[in-house]
Amino acid sequence: METMTPKISRSPITNKEYQLPANSDDKAGIDQFLSLHPGKKVVVVQGLGFVGSVMGLVVANALTEEYAVIGIDLPSPASFWKICSINEGIFPVLASDPKIPLYYENTRRKKNYYATYDPYVYSKADVVVVDINLDVKKKASATKEPEDYSVDLTPFKKAIESIGNNCKQDILVLVETTVPPGTSDKVVRPLLEECLIKRGLPTNELKVGHSYERVMPGPKYIDSIQNFYRVFAGTDEKSTNAVETFLRTVIKTDEYPLTRLGNTNATEMAKVLENSFRAMNIAFMVEWSRFAEEAGVDIYEVVNAIRMRPTHKNIMLPGLGVGGYCLTKDPLLASWAKMNLFGSSERLVQSEKGVHINDKMPLYAYEYLRTQYDGSLEGKKVLLLGVSYLNDVGDTRYTPVEGFFDQLEIDDAIIALHDPHVLYWEEKDIWINQDLDKLFEDTYDLIVITTGHKDYRNNPDLISKILKQPSALIYDTIGVLTNEEIKSLSLKHTVRVIGRGDL
Amino acid sequence: METMTPKISRSPITNKEYQLPANSDDKAGIDQFLSLHPGKKVVVVQGLGFVGSVMGLVVANALTEEYAVIGIDLPSPASFWKICSINEGIFPVLASDPKIPLYYENTRRKKNYYATYDPYVYSKADVVVVDINLDVKKKASATKEPEDYSVDLTPFKKAIESIGNNCKQDILVLVETTVPPGTSDKVVRPLLEECLIKRGLPTNELKVGHSYERVMPGPKYIDSIQNFYRVFAGTDEKSTNAVETFLRTVIKTDEYPLTRLGNTNATEMAKVLENSFRAMNIAFMVEWSRFAEEAGVDIYEVVNAIRMRPTHKNIMLPGLGVGGYCLTKDPLLASWAKMNLFGSSERLVQSEKGVHINDKMPLYAYEYLRTQYDGSLEGKKVLLLGVSYLNDVGDTRYTPVEGFFDQLEIDDAIIALHDPHVLYWEEKDIWINQDLDKLFEDTYDLIVITTGHKDYRNNPDLISKILKQPSALIYDTIGVLTNEEIKSLSLKHTVRVIGRGDL
Repeated sequence: METMTPKISRSPITNKEYQLPANSDDKAGIDQFLSLHPGKKVVVVQGLGFVGSVMGLVVANALTEEYAVIGIDLPSPASFWKICSINEGIFPVLASDPKIPLYYENTRRKKNYYATYDPYVYSKADVVVVDINLDVKKKASATKEPEDYSVDLTPFKKAIESIGNNCKQDILVLVETTVPPGTSDKVVRPLLEECLIKRGLPTNELKVGHSYERVMPGPKYIDSIQNFYRVFAGTDEKSTNAVETFLRTVIKTDEYPLTRLGNTNATEMAKVLENSFRAMNIAFMVEWSRFAEEAGVDIYEVVNAIRMRPTHKNIMLPGLGVGGYCLTKDPLLASWAKMNLFGSSERLVQSEKGVHINDKMPLYAYEYLRTQYDGSLEGKKVLLLGVSYLNDVGDTRYTPVEGFFDQLEIDDAIIALHDPHVLYWEEKDIWINQDLDKLFEDTYDLIVITTGHKDYRNNPDLISKILKQPSALIYDTIGVLTNEEIKSLSLKHTVRVIGRGDL
Repeated sequence: METMTPKISRSPITNKEYQLPANSDDKAGIDQFLSLHPGKKVVVVQGLGFVGSVMGLVVANALTEEYAVIGIDLPSPASFWKICSINEGIFPVLASDPKIPLYYENTRRKKNYYATYDPYVYSKADVVVVDINLDVKKKASATKEPEDYSVDLTPFKKAIESIGNNCKQDILVLVETTVPPGTSDKVVRPLLEECLIKRGLPTNELKVGHSYERVMPGPKYIDSIQNFYRVFAGTDEKSTNAVETFLRTVIKTDEYPLTRLGNTNATEMAKVLENSFRAMNIAFMVEWSRFAEEAGVDIYEVVNAIRMRPTHKNIMLPGLGVGGYCLTKDPLLASWAKMNLFGSSERLVQSEKGVHINDKMPLYAYEYLRTQYDGSLEGKKVLLLGVSYLNDVGDTRYTPVEGFFDQLEIDDAIIALHDPHVLYWEEKDIWINQDLDKLFEDTYDLIVITTGHKDYRNNPDLISKILKQPSALIYDTIGVLTNEEIKSLSLKHTVRVIGRGDL
């Protein structure tokens, strides 16, 4: 494991190191880029993470308009390499979606997607799309109570101010960030107006709207923006219309019609409600999968039977836990907003509880293992198959594998990691071994399937590799193994699957 | 309001009264009926409620076999009229499904559906389908804690014993009742075997299975049995096969394939999980609809926007509360079974809590009204539109309107009731006024839409009737009113809709 020096930003894709710039001046770069695109509307995408970098790509490949697109992020160790990477011709997101290289090639050809770190760019923007993070801080996940979290709007406000301090008076600021309901109306608009007033500019032409993305990193990454339903609203009718006009140029709205809601509180609520629905439905299954284990029932066959009903299609399956950037925090954003932006005295208790239950899932899975090893896995050799929180995607943000991994470290187990989609586990600063053959040269006491990647499903090679191991405990936390695979593995190993009683 | 005398059973459909029989002897009637059907297999349906009476009808109209069908229920004031009604040619369930009179006419023509109260019938049965109730007793709904409920298996066991004391040794007992998971295997089969052993009969030919119904009273009543997915299992393989053979004769399994599960614990769990999923998703929306009211958001437009996503189609809407026989108790059956049949030390806390939240919904809706009337509705004239718990159906079992109605009675309000589908509110022993014209001759302080019947939706006549009233509070607990209707009503009345902030 290596640690980055603070003055360097290193690309996990190319491993190339970039010196951070001494100051934020990139005026020359911006002006040169814009000189290639006279007369085009300028769209600035603020934030070059999983959403912003691809949103920029989609806008640069807009359906009915030619935009000059500039992505902006901070010149920090975590982000500066993305800026350099875009400008050097290497897209900063690894994804299985074949449209990404196609779209990116197109922007290279058209030279219409630039990246920078200089807030001067806002002065040139007709539209700013806000795709920065708004985080929830939680206490240590294993022990915390549902209430133990905080929302700090300061970094978000700072980012909005950097727009307001530079932008034109008639700009459209389209917030795509998942924010606490009330934010566009009670925070973003007032803040931008304040900035304009300070600069002696009128506020009546300012347009602020909210339309949340439903981006899914993975094989349909681009489609999850371009070919997907959108909900939108503005802080006033002019703003709403401006958002609609912009979205129509970017999204296939004939096939995926836009939904206009009454106000931005509603669109902001829709997003966090959507994710709370999902998080809560996962949390709901936790108790039932334990019940299934007690009653000798296979929860997977039960859930599949129930899903035959259209009214029950969305019932979830158990697993190791819940990860990703949304489901782990959005219910908390909502509850925080209810109390802090709308003065309610009641939290969203159930939704908070859902997050809490989900956060505890990896610990629950691990506790079962402790019962199998007399209380501790000290010195046990453990192979974890999967680091990403999502199948077939290299996204490690808030992956439940982390909570599980942390317990293994606490116990002083000897850990080997594999994930075909994760080169570098950013949060842990670990480079991931991609070579399963190499990994299986070693022997393990415990092999845990922690992510449901396709590579681990119906893979006779993996099964035969495991069968070549001396006796081990095979712990399938996702329900990846088929009945036939379990039968074959059980000849030599002990096999356990979360949510399945009889094997 | 009238009270029934205990020796009489009165049909709420025809108002006809039947003297209860002096003893349980109907041997002659059964033998005479069976003499009309030599060589046919005899199917006995135990319980003639919302499920059993229609299940009997479907079996008597089986797709690939001619059965002689006998329904059996208790000769009690609540049930005896159903037995008489079936034999007299009046089907004992009012439903909007046009297939019901068709199917019933067919059984009248074929004379193959008889009803009785004599357990002697079990001695003639090849198959017994168990469609009796298994109830949960809750404490007073408004104040009780989630744990305040009990499950008493005694009446259910008694019914099973009455089969075991009379049946042939090779009978198939198919339990359709929603039971605590574990019941078929740990209660029904042991009990039947015990009876057979007492009678000196072998137990190895006995077949016991479980396949839960998904009956929906309403316009697709018959289809909800005949053209719908089924999950099934048996207590051993012979039983499972026998259940499958029987179901194939009754259900359109080519279009709606059967799902065979590993054991009856699994099928029993599937049913209560299915309903717990539903109940919990309604409970989840309670907090969010309050948040929407606080934030000036229309939760209906938000939910409709979210439902565009296939993964979120099952997100629910707020309302007055949750009713019916299933969602109000099944999560509790499951939690009870977890502890009492499988010895778990952990309840299904979230599922119990879901029921608890739902039970409190009518009270919450009512509390809002109290804030509008200085704490009490004493002497206020109130019209409730809807008594059934479900749209377009006359089913009052555990309707949330009851909790709402109870509060009105506590406050000494003057209550008028309307429901186009409910002639008689059995639980309250009230005959319901069907004449909306007549009801609107009176004036009201408060008009509450309590059920989402079609008759109340997009009904200009209803709106004009309300507009002719002097100023009243219109309280839409279901979200039935359209924006246009609200606009028009608001000219004269105060309009409130649960889950909608701005109107």
